[in-house]
Amino acid sequence: MIHKLTSEERAAQIAELNGWQAVAGRDAIQRHFKFADFNEAFGFMTRVAIKAQEMDHHPEWFNVYSKVEITLSTHEANGLTERDIKLAQFIDSITA
Amino acid sequence: MIHKLTSEERAAQIAELNGWQAVAGRDAIQRHFKFADFNEAFGFMTRVAIKAQEMDHHPEWFNVYSKVEITLSTHEANGLTERDIKLAQFIDSITA
Repeated sequence: MIHKLTSEERAAQIAELNGWQAVAGRDAIQRHFKFADFNEAFGFMTRVAIKAQEMDHHPEWFNVYSKVEITLSTHEANGLTERDIKLAQFIDSITA
Repeated sequence: MIHKLTSEERAAQIAELNGWQAVAGRDAIQRHFKFADFNEAFGFMTRVAIKAQEMDHHPEWFNVYSKVEITLSTHEANGLTERDIKLAQFIDSITA
């Protein structure tokens, strides 16, 4: 069983990410992105998809045109784990 | 201004699509898809993205792992138009 982050670990990790926020009523984090257009938004999603597949850890996400909303949580742990932080860090790194 | 489908046109067009349903409270249609895994789901999304860009008509969509939910509506017309039907027909054609 993968380790679910404690409240302290969770707060510390989220604070080091860029623009991720806790989701109300769920042990998950979310970030909203706005790109120039659909081409840029879906290009970004494709980079995240390839990384997610490599990590075998996938996002929940919504897209409409230039807007992308990503929610990260670990289903097996029913909450936030190191896997979510790692995927969030990758996402931050390609949108810095 | 693009022509918004009348109630009769709307009903007739939706009836010819495969599994699309009217969205409650919105002049839009939605279909849910379930694939074998994320690779297949995102591969499908990529095909739809390329077509959408070519049509300059983009979906609203949500994905988590093997599941994809697509909502189609035409923002400029504030409702369902022929563009939505054409994109839905393409989506049906690649998932038949």
